[in-house]
Amino acid sequence: MQSDPLSQTFSALADPTRRAILARLTTGEATVGELAEPFDMSLPAVSKHLKVLERAGLVTRGREAQWRPCKLEAGPLKDATDWLERYRQFWEQSLDRLERYLDELQMTRTKNGEGNGGES
Amino acid sequence: MQSDPLSQTFSALADPTRRAILARLTTGEATVGELAEPFDMSLPAVSKHLKVLERAGLVTRGREAQWRPCKLEAGPLKDATDWLERYRQFWEQSLDRLERYLDELQMTRTKNGEGNGGES
Repeated sequence: MQSDPLSQTFSALADPTRRAILARLTTGEATVGELAEPFDMSLPAVSKHLKVLERAGLVTRGREAQWRPCKLEAGPLKDATDWLERYRQFWEQSLDRLERYLDELQMTRTKNGEGNGGES
Repeated sequence: MQSDPLSQTFSALADPTRRAILARLTTGEATVGELAEPFDMSLPAVSKHLKVLERAGLVTRGREAQWRPCKLEAGPLKDATDWLERYRQFWEQSLDRLERYLDELQMTRTKNGEGNGGES
Protein backbone atom coordinates (compact mmCIF):
# COMPACT_ATOMS: atom_id res chain seq x y z
CA MET A 1 0.00 0.00 0.00
CA GLN A 2 1.20 3.50 -0.81
CA SER A 3 2.35 5.46 2.20
CA ASP A 4 2.62 9.07 0.99
CA PRO A 5 -0.29 11.20 2.26
CA LEU A 6 -1.61 12.22 -1.16
CA SER A 7 -1.72 8.60 -2.39
CA GLN A 8 -3.53 7.58 0.80
CA THR A 9 -6.11 10.34 0.28
CA PHE A 10 -6.77 9.47 -3.38
CA SER A 11 -6.86 5.75 -2.54
CA ALA A 12 -9.42 6.37 0.24
CA LEU A 13 -11.58 8.38 -2.21
CA ALA A 14 -11.48 5.64 -4.87
CA ASP A 15 -14.60 3.93 -3.52
CA PRO A 16 -18.24 5.10 -3.80
CA THR A 17 -19.18 3.88 -0.29
CA ARG A 18 -16.31 5.76 1.32
CA ARG A 19 -17.24 8.90 -0.62
CA ALA A 20 -20.87 8.47 0.54
CA ILE A 21 -19.68 8.13 4.16
CA LEU A 22 -17.78 11.42 3.84
CA ALA A 23 -20.87 13.07 2.29
CA ARG A 24 -22.99 11.83 5.24
CA LEU A 25 -20.45 13.26 7.72
CA THR A 26 -20.83 16.74 6.21
CA THR A 27 -24.24 16.85 7.98
CA GLY A 28 -22.64 16.13 11.37
CA GLU A 29 -20.96 13.44 13.48
CA ALA A 30 -22.35 9.90 13.28
CA THR A 31 -21.84 6.49 14.92
CA VAL A 32 -20.81 3.44 12.91
CA GLY A 33 -24.39 2.15 13.23
CA GLU A 34 -25.82 5.38 11.82
CA LEU A 35 -23.34 5.28 8.95
CA ALA A 36 -24.19 1.64 8.15
CA GLU A 37 -27.97 2.22 7.86
CA PRO A 38 -28.32 3.76 4.37
CA PHE A 39 -25.87 1.26 2.83
CA ASP A 40 -27.53 -2.02 3.84
CA MET A 41 -24.06 -3.08 4.94
CA SER A 42 -22.77 -5.04 7.94
CA LEU A 43 -21.07 -3.10 10.74
CA PRO A 44 -17.72 -4.85 10.09
CA ALA A 45 -17.89 -3.85 6.41
CA VAL A 46 -18.52 -0.21 7.35
CA SER A 47 -15.79 -0.38 10.01
CA LYS A 48 -13.32 -1.56 7.37
CA HIS A 49 -14.14 1.45 5.16
CA LEU A 50 -13.84 3.73 8.19
CA LYS A 51 -10.37 2.38 8.97
CA VAL A 52 -9.22 3.33 5.45
CA LEU A 53 -10.69 6.84 5.92
CA GLU A 54 -9.05 7.12 9.38
CA ARG A 55 -5.64 6.05 8.05
CA ALA A 56 -5.94 8.76 5.38
CA GLY A 57 -6.78 11.31 8.10
CA LEU A 58 -10.21 11.99 6.58
CA VAL A 59 -12.16 10.76 9.63
CA THR A 60 -11.45 10.91 13.36
CA ARG A 61 -13.28 9.00 16.11
CA GLY A 62 -14.49 10.35 19.48
CA ARG A 63 -13.07 9.03 22.77
CA GLU A 64 -16.28 7.81 24.44
CA ALA A 65 -15.97 4.01 24.65
CA GLN A 66 -19.53 3.13 23.61
CA TRP A 67 -20.36 5.92 21.24
CA ARG A 68 -17.12 6.91 19.43
CA PRO A 69 -18.75 9.23 16.89
CA CYS A 70 -17.07 9.66 13.50
CA LYS A 71 -16.13 13.16 12.37
CA LEU A 72 -15.11 14.49 8.95
CA GLU A 73 -11.58 15.94 8.72
CA ALA A 74 -11.39 17.91 5.48
CA GLY A 75 -7.70 18.90 5.59
CA PRO A 76 -6.45 16.12 3.27
CA LEU A 77 -9.19 17.04 0.75
CA LYS A 78 -7.65 20.50 0.52
CA ASP A 79 -4.23 19.00 -0.32
CA ALA A 80 -5.84 16.80 -2.98
CA THR A 81 -7.62 19.81 -4.49
CA ASP A 82 -4.40 21.85 -4.46
CA TRP A 83 -2.70 19.08 -6.45
CA LEU A 84 -5.58 18.88 -8.96
CA GLU A 85 -5.77 22.68 -9.39
CA ARG A 86 -2.41 22.63 -11.21
CA TYR A 87 -4.20 20.87 -14.08
CA ARG A 88 -7.06 23.37 -14.36
CA GLN A 89 -5.56 25.13 -17.41
CA PHE A 90 -5.44 21.77 -19.23
CA TRP A 91 -9.11 20.85 -18.79
CA GLU A 92 -10.13 24.44 -19.55
CA GLN A 93 -8.10 24.26 -22.79
CA SER A 94 -9.92 21.02 -23.71
CA LEU A 95 -13.32 22.63 -23.07
CA ASP A 96 -12.33 25.66 -25.16
CA ARG A 97 -11.27 23.38 -28.03
CA LEU A 98 -14.56 21.44 -27.80
CA GLU A 99 -16.55 24.68 -27.82
CA ARG A 100 -14.66 25.97 -30.89
CA TYR A 101 -15.24 22.66 -32.66
CA LEU A 102 -18.99 22.76 -31.93
CA ASP A 103 -19.16 26.38 -33.13
CA GLU A 104 -17.43 25.43 -36.39
CA LEU A 105 -19.73 22.44 -36.84
CA GLN A 106 -22.78 24.67 -36.32
CA MET A 107 -21.46 27.22 -38.86
CA THR A 108 -20.83 24.51 -41.46
CA ARG A 109 -24.33 23.07 -40.98
CA THR A 110 -25.94 26.52 -41.25
CA LYS A 111 -23.93 27.25 -44.42
CA ASN A 112 -25.08 23.94 -45.94
CA GLY A 113 -28.71 24.73 -45.12
CA GLU A 114 -28.94 21.98 -42.51
CA GLY A 115 -29.76 24.43 -39.74
CA ASN A 116 -33.45 23.53 -39.50
CA GLY A 117 -35.20 20.21 -39.43
CA GLY A 118 -32.29 18.50 -37.79
CA GLU A 119 -34.03 18.06 -34.44
CA SER A 120 -37.02 15.86 -35.26
CA MET B 1 -11.71 -3.09 -9.27
CA GLN B 2 -14.12 -0.17 -9.02
CA SER B 3 -15.82 0.66 -12.29
CA ASP B 4 -17.43 4.05 -11.70
CA PRO B 5 -15.45 6.83 -13.44
CA LEU B 6 -14.72 8.87 -10.29
CA SER B 7 -13.35 5.81 -8.44
CA GLN B 8 -11.18 4.98 -11.47
CA THR B 9 -9.81 8.53 -11.52
CA PHE B 10 -9.00 8.62 -7.79
CA SER B 11 -7.52 5.13 -7.97
CA ALA B 12 -5.29 6.13 -10.88
CA LEU B 13 -4.09 9.18 -8.93
CA ALA B 14 -3.27 7.11 -5.82
CA ASP B 15 0.30 6.46 -6.94
CA PRO B 16 3.24 8.92 -6.99
CA THR B 17 4.70 7.50 -10.25
CA ARG B 18 1.39 7.90 -12.07
CA ARG B 19 1.04 11.47 -10.76
CA ALA B 20 4.61 12.18 -11.94
CA ILE B 21 3.75 10.78 -15.40
CA LEU B 22 0.77 13.15 -15.62
CA ALA B 23 2.99 16.06 -14.49
CA ARG B 24 5.52 15.17 -17.24
CA LEU B 25 2.73 15.11 -19.85
CA THR B 26 1.75 18.71 -18.99
CA THR B 27 4.92 19.74 -20.88
CA GLY B 28 3.83 17.87 -24.04
CA GLU B 29 3.32 14.42 -25.55
CA ALA B 30 5.91 11.74 -24.79
CA THR B 31 6.75 8.15 -25.77
CA VAL B 32 6.83 5.34 -23.20
CA GLY B 33 10.64 5.43 -23.42
CA GLU B 34 10.75 9.15 -22.66
CA LEU B 35 8.37 8.66 -19.74
CA ALA B 36 10.47 5.78 -18.33
CA GLU B 37 13.76 7.74 -18.30
CA PRO B 38 13.40 9.88 -15.14
CA PHE B 39 11.97 6.98 -13.10
CA ASP B 40 14.77 4.44 -13.59
CA MET B 41 11.98 1.99 -14.32
CA SER B 42 11.59 -0.80 -16.88
CA LEU B 43 9.40 -0.15 -19.93
CA PRO B 44 6.89 -2.87 -18.85
CA ALA B 45 6.55 -1.23 -15.41
CA VAL B 46 5.84 2.17 -17.00
CA SER B 47 3.45 0.53 -19.50
CA LYS B 48 1.49 -0.96 -16.59
CA HIS B 49 1.08 2.47 -15.00
CA LEU B 50 0.07 3.91 -18.39
CA LYS B 51 -2.62 1.26 -18.79
CA VAL B 52 -4.17 2.35 -15.46
CA LEU B 53 -4.06 6.00 -16.60
CA GLU B 54 -5.57 5.05 -19.99
CA ARG B 55 -8.41 3.07 -18.40
CA ALA B 56 -9.21 6.12 -16.25
CA GLY B 57 -9.26 8.27 -19.41
CA LEU B 58 -6.37 10.41 -18.16
CA VAL B 59 -4.02 9.47 -20.99
CA THR B 60 -4.61 8.66 -24.65
CA ARG B 61 -2.10 7.11 -27.09
CA GLY B 62 -1.35 8.15 -30.67
CA ARG B 63 -2.05 5.82 -33.61
CA GLU B 64 1.43 5.60 -35.15
CA ALA B 65 2.53 1.97 -34.68
CA GLN B 66 6.12 2.65 -33.61
CA TRP B 67 5.80 5.93 -31.82
CA ARG B 68 2.35 5.99 -30.09
CA PRO B 69 2.92 9.18 -28.07
CA CYS B 70 1.07 9.56 -24.77
CA LYS B 71 -1.11 12.62 -24.26
CA LEU B 72 -2.66 14.07 -21.10
CA GLU B 73 -6.47 14.14 -21.01
CA ALA B 74 -7.47 16.44 -18.16
CA GLY B 75 -11.27 16.00 -18.30
CA PRO B 76 -11.50 13.41 -15.49
CA LEU B 77 -9.38 15.69 -13.29
CA LYS B 78 -12.09 18.35 -13.63
CA ASP B 79 -14.74 15.88 -12.41
CA ALA B 80 -12.54 14.91 -9.45
CA THR B 81 -12.03 18.59 -8.58
CA ASP B 82 -15.78 19.27 -8.87
CA TRP B 83 -16.41 16.47 -6.35
CA LEU B 84 -13.76 17.79 -3.94
CA GLU B 85 -14.96 21.41 -4.20
CA ARG B 86 -18.13 20.45 -2.28
CA TYR B 87 -15.91 20.01 0.79
CA ARG B 88 -14.19 23.38 0.50
CA GLN B 89 -16.32 25.00 3.25
CA PHE B 90 -15.26 22.22 5.63
CA TRP B 91 -11.53 22.64 5.25
CA GLU B 92 -11.91 26.42 5.32
CA GLN B 93 -13.84 26.10 8.61
CA SER B 94 -11.02 23.96 10.01
CA LEU B 95 -8.42 26.55 8.99
CA ASP B 96 -10.55 29.35 10.54
CA ARG B 97 -10.79 27.39 13.79
CA LEU B 98 -7.03 26.78 13.81
CA GLU B 99 -6.38 30.47 13.19
CA ARG B 100 -8.72 31.51 16.03
CA TYR B 101 -7.03 29.00 18.34
CA LEU B 102 -3.58 30.36 17.50
CA ASP B 103 -4.81 33.95 18.02
CA GLU B 104 -6.19 33.02 21.44
CA LEU B 105 -2.97 31.22 22.35
CA GLN B 106 -0.96 34.28 21.35
CA MET B 107 -3.22 36.59 23.42
CA THR B 108 -2.90 34.33 26.49
CA ARG B 109 0.88 34.22 26.17
CA THR B 110 1.09 38.02 25.78
CA LYS B 111 -1.15 38.51 28.85
CA ASN B 112 1.06 36.16 30.85
CA GLY B 113 4.18 38.05 29.79
CA GLU B 114 5.48 35.11 27.81
CA GLY B 115 5.54 37.11 24.61
CA ASN B 116 9.32 37.51 24.48
CA GLY B 117 12.15 35.15 25.18
CA GLY B 118 10.16 32.14 24.11
CA GLU B 119 12.06 31.62 20.91
CA SER B 120 15.60 30.89 22.11
